[in-house]
Formats: sequence, structure tokens, C-alpha cells
Amino acid sequence: MVTARTARSLFSVCVASRPWSVWTSVCVGARWWEARGRQLYGAGAVWDSRKQASAGWGSRHQSTSAGWGSKKHAAKRKIQLQTAELMMDAEMEQQLAPLRASCKEQGDLVRKLKAEGAPEVDIKKEVQELKARKKELEDMILKLSPADTFDRAKMNDLIKRRFFYDNSFAIYGGITGQYDYGPMGCDLVDNLLAEWHKHFVIQERMLKVNCSILTPEPVLKASGHVDKFADYMVKDVKTGECFRLDHLIKQHFEKVMADKKTSAEEKEALSLTVARLDGMTMEEMNDLMRKHDMKSPLTGNNLTDATEFNLMFPISIGPSGNLKGFLRPETAQGIFVNFKRLLEYNQGKLPFACAQVGNAYRNEISPRSGLLRVREFTMAEIEHFCDPDDKNHPKFAQVADTEMVLYSGCAQMDGESAKRMTIGEAVHGGMVANETLGYYMARIQQYLLRIGINPKKLRFRQHLSNEMAHYACDCWDAECLTSYGWIECVGCADRSAYDLQQHTKGSGVRMCVERPLKEAVMVDSLAAQPDKGIIGKTFKKDAKAVQEALTALTIEQAEQMDKALTEQGEYELSGFKMTRAMVPSFKREQKKVFVEEIVPSVIEPSFGVGRVFYSLLEHSFRVREDDDKRTFFSLATVVAPIKVSVLPLSNKQEFVPFTTQLADALTDLNLSVKIDDSTGSIGRRYARTDEIGIPLGITVDFDTVNKVPHTVTVRERDSTQQVRMPIEEVPLTIKNLADGKTQWKDVTDKWPIFTSQETTK
Amino acid sequence: MVTARTARSLFSVCVASRPWSVWTSVCVGARWWEARGRQLYGAGAVWDSRKQASAGWGSRHQSTSAGWGSKKHAAKRKIQLQTAELMMDAEMEQQLAPLRASCKEQGDLVRKLKAEGAPEVDIKKEVQELKARKKELEDMILKLSPADTFDRAKMNDLIKRRFFYDNSFAIYGGITGQYDYGPMGCDLVDNLLAEWHKHFVIQERMLKVNCSILTPEPVLKASGHVDKFADYMVKDVKTGECFRLDHLIKQHFEKVMADKKTSAEEKEALSLTVARLDGMTMEEMNDLMRKHDMKSPLTGNNLTDATEFNLMFPISIGPSGNLKGFLRPETAQGIFVNFKRLLEYNQGKLPFACAQVGNAYRNEISPRSGLLRVREFTMAEIEHFCDPDDKNHPKFAQVADTEMVLYSGCAQMDGESAKRMTIGEAVHGGMVANETLGYYMARIQQYLLRIGINPKKLRFRQHLSNEMAHYACDCWDAECLTSYGWIECVGCADRSAYDLQQHTKGSGVRMCVERPLKEAVMVDSLAAQPDKGIIGKTFKKDAKAVQEALTALTIEQAEQMDKALTEQGEYELSGFKMTRAMVPSFKREQKKVFVEEIVPSVIEPSFGVGRVFYSLLEHSFRVREDDDKRTFFSLATVVAPIKVSVLPLSNKQEFVPFTTQLADALTDLNLSVKIDDSTGSIGRRYARTDEIGIPLGITVDFDTVNKVPHTVTVRERDSTQQVRMPIEEVPLTIKNLADGKTQWKDVTDKWPIFTSQETTK
Repeated sequence: MVTARTARSLFSVCVASRPWSVWTSVCVGARWWEARGRQLYGAGAVWDSRKQASAGWGSRHQSTSAGWGSKKHAAKRKIQLQTAELMMDAEMEQQLAPLRASCKEQGDLVRKLKAEGAPEVDIKKEVQELKARKKELEDMILKLSPADTFDRAKMNDLIKRRFFYDNSFAIYGGITGQYDYGPMGCDLVDNLLAEWHKHFVIQERMLKVNCSILTPEPVLKASGHVDKFADYMVKDVKTGECFRLDHLIKQHFEKVMADKKTSAEEKEALSLTVARLDGMTMEEMNDLMRKHDMKSPLTGNNLTDATEFNLMFPISIGPSGNLKGFLRPETAQGIFVNFKRLLEYNQGKLPFACAQVGNAYRNEISPRSGLLRVREFTMAEIEHFCDPDDKNHPKFAQVADTEMVLYSGCAQMDGESAKRMTIGEAVHGGMVANETLGYYMARIQQYLLRIGINPKKLRFRQHLSNEMAHYACDCWDAECLTSYGWIECVGCADRSAYDLQQHTKGSGVRMCVERPLKEAVMVDSLAAQPDKGIIGKTFKKDAKAVQEALTALTIEQAEQMDKALTEQGEYELSGFKMTRAMVPSFKREQKKVFVEEIVPSVIEPSFGVGRVFYSLLEHSFRVREDDDKRTFFSLATVVAPIKVSVLPLSNKQEFVPFTTQLADALTDLNLSVKIDDSTGSIGRRYARTDEIGIPLGITVDFDTVNKVPHTVTVRERDSTQQVRMPIEEVPLTIKNLADGKTQWKDVTDKWPIFTSQETTK
Repeated sequence: MVTARTARSLFSVCVASRPWSVWTSVCVGARWWEARGRQLYGAGAVWDSRKQASAGWGSRHQSTSAGWGSKKHAAKRKIQLQTAELMMDAEMEQQLAPLRASCKEQGDLVRKLKAEGAPEVDIKKEVQELKARKKELEDMILKLSPADTFDRAKMNDLIKRRFFYDNSFAIYGGITGQYDYGPMGCDLVDNLLAEWHKHFVIQERMLKVNCSILTPEPVLKASGHVDKFADYMVKDVKTGECFRLDHLIKQHFEKVMADKKTSAEEKEALSLTVARLDGMTMEEMNDLMRKHDMKSPLTGNNLTDATEFNLMFPISIGPSGNLKGFLRPETAQGIFVNFKRLLEYNQGKLPFACAQVGNAYRNEISPRSGLLRVREFTMAEIEHFCDPDDKNHPKFAQVADTEMVLYSGCAQMDGESAKRMTIGEAVHGGMVANETLGYYMARIQQYLLRIGINPKKLRFRQHLSNEMAHYACDCWDAECLTSYGWIECVGCADRSAYDLQQHTKGSGVRMCVERPLKEAVMVDSLAAQPDKGIIGKTFKKDAKAVQEALTALTIEQAEQMDKALTEQGEYELSGFKMTRAMVPSFKREQKKVFVEEIVPSVIEPSFGVGRVFYSLLEHSFRVREDDDKRTFFSLATVVAPIKVSVLPLSNKQEFVPFTTQLADALTDLNLSVKIDDSTGSIGRRYARTDEIGIPLGITVDFDTVNKVPHTVTVRERDSTQQVRMPIEEVPLTIKNLADGKTQWKDVTDKWPIFTSQETTK
């Protein structure tokens, strides 16, 4: 259990001396109500117009901390990690039954109000109550679930010691919310992305782009980020230290709740308030802060009223200071602004998908939770453009039988658990909006399992209709269970035509596709009959633009122009002053039209690479049963940074030719190799290679040197089994294992298990 | 030839209506003197403390433009591209002889002054004269060289049309100095970097890191960027429009020189002044501007005096506004600040190398020249840390016979040409400073040739001793010949211990390595004899730090402390107040020491990815001899974005199963495949696939469907040769060609050349 004492040391910046319970705010499933309510229930629908898509990395509502980013070393502690058991046993279900019923009752009330078209404010109030009941249920599920033991401090020690990643600029005192990836972390991320490229870009024949990170303001104005991408912030009136108001309130209440003097009733009331925090307006939060007389947790000083703090990093492009821009807060916009070029590249045809991998930036107010909330992060996003009236997917049949754990909005409202079903059932039963969305969900799951995510700790959670932005049709998050609770790693949303429409408005450039009509139709038109001579003479090089503007007139615009030319004698067309002489007449005619213009829908799978990476580390972390100091990462061969180690028994000269020859042969096959000819025992060196997840190890010993045919031992990391094989068979055997073409069992079938490691001469 | 008219249209921002000659400022070899003189000859040695390493992307002194980044479409034009012929024929040599002699005479004078220890100011003056003479020679070589025809407008048209890359945010009016890479450009860059990873990281078993781009100020203060990374800038007094002063002067003079009324003598004088520009101080440039009464080329308004403009993008990290930082101007610093962790990862041993690939940012005053000078760019840098007293490389013998074109500093001073020799000769003859530097130069060349850089358009140019920063031992640039002249694509420098020393000073953390001594030595020491009880009681949790500080005392510090405790009764040690009672005595003793501390030297190969990419495009651009509208990129299979196309003869249903089956089989081998089932003729579709550099094409025709065994044709892009082979042989044949395991000739040896394309039923 997390006690107040241990929890205290987790928290890095604001409340270093304030105890509170981690589990009251972050728990299995608790995020369903926590996440992203504010723009729907809050006044003015502020903060993140795109959060449905951008999933949770950098998302707003998580309240625990890794202790990294803190200069204090996290205290050693055990954290109860709840396994994602779907079915509780009978006794547990009995305890849960009243809570489930309470959720369902409230869910039904919300449904009823919506069906009746009740006022938005009434619905909001009841949804807040639903969230609070839902949280109570989730807390109880957590409490009753069988726990497995995961020691985060132990894992962080290994991560830091072997430089998977660490705080950036540590020799200069470090900086919160920024991390440097060391050799192992960097290679692991590269391998995750290489698999991602194969799995999505190559296999689905996607386009790929790499767009600018420095983004001019009008682009992000159009996308909604300039106006809505903000958190509520308060400041210490004396020191100027900044705090996120929702975090501050939560921490304050958690401290009060942890106090023995607080009565059970008070605790209950505060807990409900915390549960309702995400639905509150800035004013409501300000009132709460004042009512409970909250001060800066660092200094005890007074705090200012909250202001909205935009999370984008502003930047001035060029030397003049006149071109304002931002570091992009997500990669997706780069794809949208290039839509026309991409469509042209695809010869004007739908559907097509375009992928982008790159950095994005969010100026978090007080980043915590290690890699889960950072200021600089890598995203891998896909925008799949398709016909809004046909979202079937030609390859859906190939994935229809994929079994997935789906936690539908309905189940969440009814207080039920997530359900295992096939994606085919989910799509055809109407739970998932369409085949394309379902296809990507299945492909996302395939990818996550392939790189080594634990299938028992993976679920897809649907956004409640109230959670989604008004334009989105459906949205599912792939969530991984970690010691921080369920965290959103991949978002998968049907964003309808929203983004392209916004950029059409913002840029004035139409973002649409011509779709052939089944049969041609006749439409009325009013065609300008221009005097090209006069237009050419008047506008010279701009004459072409004027002609195009004339051709593009709708029938209504043409009528208006004709009228104006008749009545006022002139008309301004796209900034050009037109006269009657330039367009003496308009001709009414019928045109046969073979195509119609449509704005494509966008299905968007969006990966938070750092979150996938972190979840994978937790899911791969192991402690040897016979020695709890021997920790290691059981990384899948396909993503392991180094595929094979070569260990000579000692650094004696006689081993060198064998070691070198083997390592070179493996390198020639493009395998990453680690030679460890340091002085430790073979056992100790195996432990070192295990730590960094090297799946296979080769030992060169006296038998290698002295006996013909020359043989070496090959060891597999997880089982620690070894076989002995002729040296010339080794490179290809390792290559096939690394590529996943053969399994370790194939190797032990062919070569006998070898037990005595150190044959001495 | 570039005329004033065509040159005009090249230039994007400042001087759209001002003619000048491209070749007076950018020409073969002219960059040797242009580049990077200012910090050595200019007052205060301003601007780029690291430019030796960062090579030329984003470097300061290039004055032509691609026309991209301009809204005007570049006028169609031919540019004489000079081939890098090393040896001029006899007649040409006769014309060059007096110019060569003139260079040598001046070079000898510089050498003499330096040998005599003449005042720096006198040497500077003579070096400027040397540069001017050198330029005259280079201009003449260009004029006499046989020209090949390269049509940049034609290439740019293809690049834009097929979206290799294009201006960022074009639908919002675009932005100069920023480019989006489309599907083809993005994949090509990815493939260049994948090969880079194999060639360097895997083959040399390097470490790799991925560090933060947001960098706090103290880090870049230590590296020298905060103080020295600047250009001289003037502003239009009315509009505030900014201009780089050296560019402005150059353009002004070029305009005057292009004027028919200017006499030959005046032209000569102005040309010499332009050649001397890079050596001038800010005051000298200001004087020139005033003397010639230069105005804003856009408005004719007056200009301010020059100021230094720092090229880094400032950024504020976190919400408080107190943490100042910058977007990193290069990736290298991330490796240096992690040196201690990397050394530990390498078990404390030298040598080792660490690589990083990532974005860097420079806020150019007025970026032009397409991809050659941009505000956001990708670098791939390697820092090889080695013993300063042993820069031999264990694998040097493997590359010693590599032939390279080397343009030594000596040859440049003597007016000689670049020379072809082996890297072994160059290192052992002393031209290249050491084996490790030479090894990397050879490996860089191998890489560039492997990805398809034309060996006739590649040379390595040494920095003159006057060009290098004071701390660098030797520096060579890999330069590619393009229509912009020789451009620096890769820098390769021996930077000595400079960077680690700077960060030791900046952070207070010692960056060094323990080197075992050949035999142990005895050293005097004065060891504190502390009272651990008192210290523990007094300092509690800090007691350990106090103990460590006592152990770390040098003999001088210990003497000083002892004296202070005796005389004043107290002494401040690392912020702790120490008393006599805590350290009652010091004991003088002799210690046996087995290691010494050294600061490693750094050899730094540094790649400007955008520049390599652009050079490769120019070197790969082809026009079909029989049809000059058929342009294409002859990309090497290993880097080609798409490896193979599958073209059904028509979109008839009967071809579909064959097309799909083939494409899927190829995709399963991780090959990128393009299916083109559009309606054009096979010839037209081949032309389209040629445009984007697809090296192999498969056609499914009636014979495929109707004859058994089923066969298809396979076509090679460059030769347009085709063979017919059984369909089941295709995937592995293509895979082997793509991996470079077999060559096209092996295929034509096995299968007969096929001539009739369209067998009709």
C-alpha cells in the first residue's frame, strides 16, 4: 500500500511536504471520468480542442508522480499493481453489486435527460454525479483485485544505472519534464519506431511526411490551439511559483483526507469534490480555493486567482520579431496542411493514409510522472482520409476475428466491466462506429502485442459521448496498465471532417476531393461572359487570377455580382475591382456534372511513443526468482536494443580471434553486438547483459579454442538455458532468432541443453 | 552562363529586383576562403565558436538562392555545372600558371610572417590578399572547365510536382527557410539515415543517444553559443526589415559591377572588396555601407548601423518565465553533457564513440538557397572520444588504401589543385593529423559513395590553420559539387579536449577519464584525520558529503585548511563550516597511485542531412536522352524510397489476383511497393515510377494470366532493360536486388532480355 509517508516522496515540485493517497486519484479505470471533461462541462468549453486525438501524453489530468524530475531519490517502496482481471469472483461481485447498480441508476438518468432534451446545465450536473459514482466503483474494484508486486524504485534504479534514460542536463542541475535517452533507451525507441514503420507504413502502404516543428500562428489559430489549449494556473503572490489549480486543489484535499483528525463524513465529501474537479469551471475552482483558504504548498504564501495558461511554447521566427509562431503541440497539423499535395500524390483518390513521426512540445505547468508527462515528446500519428459516406475497410475481414478487451461507453455508464469480444462483433454490433476505426484498433493491438505489451494489461476504452469533441464520431484509447494506473498510450479517433474544414476556413484553400457521381446530374449555372481583352489590359499578370475567380463563382455569387454591376456599376471580386465593361453579361445555362466535392473524414491513430516505451519497460521488468538483486528487462528480440553478446571466458589472448571473428560475422548481418571482455565471472557478465535486455549470449571458452570442431555456447536470457553448437552455425542461427524466423525452442530441439558453463582446461 | 536577368529571379527576399552574378560569390572552390574567416580575422573573434564542426548547413557565407522560399517561380534557365576535373589540360594549365604563382607568392609571404611571429594584424591583412588571389584562380578554373548541363529549374519542377519536399505551410502563404518533406523526400531521408545507422552505429559499435532540443541557457553559455553565435544585421529604419550586412554589401557591389557604366577598373576594385568581405570587422563593414551610401534594396530607406544578431531561437521553459533557454543550434552538446554517463556505460574505457541524429535550429536572418540554408534542419553527429596521446585507430589498416581527393591547406596556399591519394599516404605523410581522423574521413567517403554521391563530385577540403578555432588540431570538410558550387556536407574535425573542458568549467563537474599508469608512482598527500562522530552529529544527512569533500582535498587545499583551522579556528569546505574539533589533525603520507586523470580528445564527424540529401538529388537527376521531358532520379536501390512498382497492363479484373498476390509477397519481405493500376499506358506509368526513382518495375500482362507457368516482366529503371521470369521467382529476386546482394547484370545473365512490352491477347 502507498502510505502518506511514501507518497510524499513521489511528488516533485509543488507539494513536497504534503501527504496524500495516490490511489484516490489514479486507479484502474478511474481515468474514464478524470480525463477531458472540462471542455464539455466547463464554461466556454476551454482548453484542448484536439485532446480526443492527442490521447494522454501530455494530457491534463493525471496526478501522481514518478519522483524522477525530483532531485530527491524516490523512497524504496512497493506499489500494489492491480492486474486487469476482467471477471471478479462471486464474492467480489457481491460487494460490487450495489456500486454497479448505483452507477447504472445514474447512467440511466443521464440517458433519460438527454433523450428528453433537458438543458445542458442539468445534464452536466448529473454527469458529474455519474463520474463520482463510477470512481467509487473503480476504487472498490482496485481494492478487491489480486495484487501483483512491482517495485518501481527497483526498475528506476536499473533504468538510471544502465542509462535507458535520465533527466536532461543533469550536470547543470537537471530540468523537469525533459529526458535524454541513453544508448539503450534510444535504440529501444528506434526499434519500436522501425517496427511501427513496417507494421503501418509498409504493410498498409501509407504515405509519410516530415513537417516543420516551428509553426506560424495562423495555422494553430485555425486548429483551435491558440484559443483553447490551456490549463488553469495560479501563482504564489510573493515568489511567482506556478501551480496547476486542479492539481493544487486535489493535493490539498488529499492532505486533509489523510489527516487522522478528519471525520469519515468529511473525507467522503472531499473525495466526491475531488471526483467532480474535472467538470468545474475556472470560477468554481477559484471559489473552492478561497473557501478552503489554500496557500502555496511550498511557502504558505497567498495565491493569485487562476488564469488560463496556454501550453504552447511561443517563438519568434526570423529576426524582425513580427512573425509569431509556436513549437507544434502535436504532429497532426503538418499532415492536414499538406492534404492537397498528398491527395495529388495519391492521384486524387480516396482513401489514403499518411503517417508522421516527430517531436511535439507542451509547456506543462509542473510536469511530473516521469516519461508520462513531459515538455518535449515524440508522437507517431496517422491520418487516414476516407469517404465520409463509406467507412468500410477492404482489409477488415482479415482482422475481424481479433479478440480485444473493449470498455465501451455504455459499460462505463452501466457500471459494468470491460468485455472481451472480437472486433468484428464490436463493429457489426454498432459498439465501434465503423470498419476503418475498428481495423485500426485491431492493428494497434497487433502492434502493441508484437513489441511486447502484456495482453493482460491492455484494454481499449471508449470515450463517453460527453467526453468527445462535438465533431468526433467515436474515439477509443488503447490503455496500458502500469504502476500509475491505466494510462492512455494510443488514441484512435474518427474526427470526421473537422480538421480539413478548419484549415479551409483558416487558409481560404478548399480541402476537398472530387467524388465521381454514379450518374451525371444537370445543375443550373450562371456563367460570367467576360471581356478578356479588357481584363487582361487592366489586371495584367493578375488577369489569370481574376478569370479563375470568375469561374469559381457559385450561382448565388454570380447573381449578386450581376446585380451589383447593374446597380452600382462595380463589384469587388477577390480584391479586384470589377466593372460592367469587364463582364458585360452572365449566361444562365445547365451544366452536366459528373463529380461532386466532398470533404474527407479523418480516422486518426495517434501514438505517444514515450508512453508506449514506458509501459513496455514496466511490462518487461523482471526479477530473478532465485536472486532479487538480479533485475532485467525481458525485451522481445524484435525490439531489444542489442541482439547478442559475445563473452570470452577471460581476456586471455587465445580467445581474441574467436571473439572478433564471431562479432564481425554477426555485425555483417546488421545485428547489434556487445562484446564484454571485462574481468567479471561469466555469471556476473550474463547478469549485466540481462539488465539491458540482450536476449542471446555467446560464450567463447576453452572448448572453443581446444576442440575441433570449434564450438561455443549460446544462452537465452529469459530461460537462462544454454546449448552448445559449432561456431560456424552461430551467425545465421542468431539472425533467424533476431528476425523472429525461428524460436528458441527450435534451437533447443536441434542442439542439446548444455549445463556445465565453465569447462576449465 | 548565369546572366544578371536569370540571377535576379533566384533571389527571394531582400533584393528581388537587383541583378548580380551568382558566380562572383559562389564558385568551385571559392568557399575555401569565404567560409568562416570572421572569427579569426574579425574584431573580437565573434560569431561561431563551433563552426569548424558544424560544417556548412546553416553556415554563414553563401549568397545564392534556390528561388524556393520565394513566391516567384524560378525562371527556366540553364546553369553551367562545373565538373570536378582535377587535372586541367596543358593549355589551360598555361593560362592558370601565372595565377597559381601569384597565390603561391602570397602564401609564402603569409608563411614567412607567421614564422617570424609578425603581429596578428599584419598576418590578417596578407591572408585577405591571399584569399583574393585564390578567388581569382578559382574563377579562372571554373571558366576553363568543361561544363556539363544541369537544369535546376527542371529538377525543382520534378521535386515539387512529385512532392519530394516543398515550402512549409504553403496554404498559409509559406514561410522561408522551412521545408516539409513529402512521401518521397521523407522516405529518402529515412533510408539515408538507416544506412548511416548501419554504416556507423552498427558497424563501429557506437553508442547512441537522443537528447533534449530545449536547452537551458547555462549549457549554451558554456559551449560559447550564447556569446559568439551571431551574424551582423542592419535594419530598414522605417519598415524594420532585416538584412545580413555581408550579404547586403555583396549584393550592392554585384549590382554596381553588373552596370554597363561601371569601368573595368572599378569592377576589379569592387570584386576585390567582395573577396575581402569575410575578413572584415563590423566597423569596417559599417564604414563600407556608409561610404557607398547603401539603402534598403526593398524600399530605398536608410539603414541602421549593424548589430550582432544571435542566431539561436530563445525560448522560455515552464510557466514562470524565469528559466531561459534556446532551441539547440546543433546536436553535439547533448552528447558532451552526457559524457560521464556514457563513459560509465562503456565501463570507464576509452576510446568510444557516441552518435546522435536529430533536429537543430538557427534563426537565419534571411534564409535562401533552398535546403542549403534553413532554420530547422536535421544533423547526424558522432563524437569519438579518445586518448589525447594515442589517436591511432585499430581499424585504420582496413581503410588505408582508400583513394580520396584531398585538397590540403598547403595546396590551397600554393595555388595547387586537389590531389588524389590514399588516406594511408595522407596520414603517414602528415597531411591528415592522425589515424582516427583519417579513418573517419575514409568511412565518410565510403558512406557517401554507397548512397549514390558522384565520386567525381566529391572532395575533402582541409581548413586552413587560420580558419580553424584555436583549439582544433585539424579539420576536413567533405564537399559535394552542385549547381551552387562546392557545398560542405560533412565536417570531420579533431576538436581536442575543448568541449569537455568548457562543460567542466560551466557545470563544475569534472569530465575526465582515469588512465592506468604504466607503473605506479608515489605521490605526497596530506590526509585529513576527521572526528567522524562530531561530523555526523553536526551535519547529519550531509555528513557523507563532508567526508567526500575531505577526501577530495588536494595537498595544497589540505595545507590551507589546516592552517586556517589553526589560525582562525574554522574553515569553509564546500559550503560547510568546519572547526578544529571536526578535523583535529592532518597526516602527511605517501600514496601509491596507479592511474592518472586525462581529458579525452574528441574527433567529430558531423553530417548536414539536408545537404547530403540535396546533393544526392542533384547527382541523381537524369533526363532521358530520347525525350527531354522524361526526367527522373537514378537513386541507388539501397536508398530509393520505393523499391518496386507493380503495374497491371490495365485495370481489368483478371489482373487483380496476380497484382495483389505479388504486391503482398513483396510487402511481406518488408519491401516498399507501389501499385499503379491507373489508366495510362505502361510507358507513361513507367515514366511516373521513374520520376520518383523506383529502381524496379513489374508488369502483369496477358501472358501472365494466360500462359503457364505464369510469368511477369521485370524492368530496371536506368537501363530500361526488361526480362521475363516466372512469377514465383520475383519476390526473392527483387529482395536480393534491393539488399544489394545481386546486381541487375546477374538477373539479365539468368533471364533473357525481353523486348516486346505489350503482348496483346
